[in-house]
Amino acid sequence: MTAPALLEAYSGRRPERLPVWFMRQAGRSLPEYRALREGVGMIESCLRPDLAAEITLQPVRRHGVDAAIFFSDIMVPLHLAGVDVTIQPGVGPVVAEPVRSAADVDRLVDHQPGDASAVAEAVRIVVAELDETPLIGFAGAPFTLAAYLVEGRPSRDHLAARTLMHADPESWRRLMRWAADISADFVRTQVRAGARAAQLFDSWAGALSLDDYASHAAPFSARTLAQVRSLGVPVVHFGTGTGELLGAMRDAGADVVGVDYRIPLDEANRRLGGTTVLQGNIDPALLDAPWDVLEAHVRDVVERGRSAPAHVVNLGHGVPPGTDPDVLTRLVALVHSL
Amino acid sequence: MTAPALLEAYSGRRPERLPVWFMRQAGRSLPEYRALREGVGMIESCLRPDLAAEITLQPVRRHGVDAAIFFSDIMVPLHLAGVDVTIQPGVGPVVAEPVRSAADVDRLVDHQPGDASAVAEAVRIVVAELDETPLIGFAGAPFTLAAYLVEGRPSRDHLAARTLMHADPESWRRLMRWAADISADFVRTQVRAGARAAQLFDSWAGALSLDDYASHAAPFSARTLAQVRSLGVPVVHFGTGTGELLGAMRDAGADVVGVDYRIPLDEANRRLGGTTVLQGNIDPALLDAPWDVLEAHVRDVVERGRSAPAHVVNLGHGVPPGTDPDVLTRLVALVHSL
Repeated sequence: MTAPALLEAYSGRRPERLPVWFMRQAGRSLPEYRALREGVGMIESCLRPDLAAEITLQPVRRHGVDAAIFFSDIMVPLHLAGVDVTIQPGVGPVVAEPVRSAADVDRLVDHQPGDASAVAEAVRIVVAELDETPLIGFAGAPFTLAAYLVEGRPSRDHLAARTLMHADPESWRRLMRWAADISADFVRTQVRAGARAAQLFDSWAGALSLDDYASHAAPFSARTLAQVRSLGVPVVHFGTGTGELLGAMRDAGADVVGVDYRIPLDEANRRLGGTTVLQGNIDPALLDAPWDVLEAHVRDVVERGRSAPAHVVNLGHGVPPGTDPDVLTRLVALVHSL
Repeated sequence: MTAPALLEAYSGRRPERLPVWFMRQAGRSLPEYRALREGVGMIESCLRPDLAAEITLQPVRRHGVDAAIFFSDIMVPLHLAGVDVTIQPGVGPVVAEPVRSAADVDRLVDHQPGDASAVAEAVRIVVAELDETPLIGFAGAPFTLAAYLVEGRPSRDHLAARTLMHADPESWRRLMRWAADISADFVRTQVRAGARAAQLFDSWAGALSLDDYASHAAPFSARTLAQVRSLGVPVVHFGTGTGELLGAMRDAGADVVGVDYRIPLDEANRRLGGTTVLQGNIDPALLDAPWDVLEAHVRDVVERGRSAPAHVVNLGHGVPPGTDPDVLTRLVALVHSL
């Protein structure tokens, strides 16, 4: 029995079929998702095992993608640890008591990882249903968790978090160690329950200079990644606007680097020295363009991806909410034909 | 009589005193600004000559910076052209009828640049008051104008605008030509009334890949810049997250490239081939750090800036609203002592 194409590629080999999945494939673009979510809050939907499992499975059934990505939210492990966080529609995650001082960090790091049995149960349901298609575990990277905790809400430039790392590096270090362990615990739960790979999303890493990333974020991503890789699964490391950070993200201990839509894959491969498996990077803006424009773009992405040791096709950012799901299905067929 | 330090530096010479000013120095961080703005809408404040002039002058008096930057809003030339745009507090610019189709572009490009006499009058008041300190004219770059027009409101990834440029390049081109001329007309008004330099803000250019920037944005920035430079003033071109785009932004026809906080100035200088005047790039996140941390950072910025032919010290992004203005005043004194 051959390994699934996704895991072949994540191991650095080129499977017969080019594997493809989409960040945010589980969720808002699917009518069957919107129907399931009616009247159910975001965090609640992540913690009802039947619901989280069904949402995770929907895009696999519909599109025939080569992987499921566990449906969750970056804030879930914080919620499980007892941090007061809500997901406000139209705003995003809001933290009731932002972490701004050494005393705030003291209070925060007293929180232990919470009971993640609902997550484990959801993963078991998914894996039982999936047959050969692998499930990818999901977590936010420590910097992204910390950025939310310090800002208290989504932010463009993450100013308060970036101030804290320079103004009080010792508190920052304690906050980041805590976030790294919370994040690792959350992914490890998913892997132990059956996820066969994991992706660490550092959504906001692109707000950092390379120096700041290397000094104040990467060591803590490394802490998370090491705890996940010790379970023997490959890990993907992704963030947007990270063209300057690709090498540092790989060196934090990732098997695969996710590339956003801004950097062509052959250029990303050059920056990474030609030795790293790449994932990406169809521009989500083209999903809503005429098919011939999208097809030409996808062929270009695949062509550039051939420079890397192996390539998993994905978007260069999440599926936009307004995407026509039929376009995604057609895209999977196109990639599988290449 | 020697030229002001700012203009010396913008011309590629190193003046005796290192010039410094701050993006968004005029505005929200100053209590005297907040007092003036009480009960006055943003666009109204830009179009009342006495008010716009006073707001422009406030930071020059308070901080002793080497330049005034004309107080305005990126949306003002759209408003003057009769486009229905409002600045909603806590949201930002909102366009009543977003431009999404060829027909929308048809309607838009019928709008002529409006009567900018209030802007010219404000500039004349400022210049009369300023004595030797030069005034820098201000406008948004065509891509940033177009992104607002297409999205209808602030957006993280400017998806609709980026879709349009690929889905309907001909409509995109017409939209961008219009935006380029509106932007040029707005800056030319300021220069004719006495501004001695100009800065084109492409706030959202960092959302584009280099290919997309070069094909779908830079030619139109070039159209704006050429119209401004023909009046004989130096122009600065700035955007955030533009580390990959610096060369293309310079090649669009800028005398000076503004560098955001993510890329060290010596690296920016290397990317630009060592021949371009740089402006930047103190990290605004450090304005709220202890003084010794900020001072060490500023000294590092100035040191790295010495690699460039000339350097105008600035922030790597706008002054954050919560900044203590006394820190900015102290910063000016520090830079002038270096």
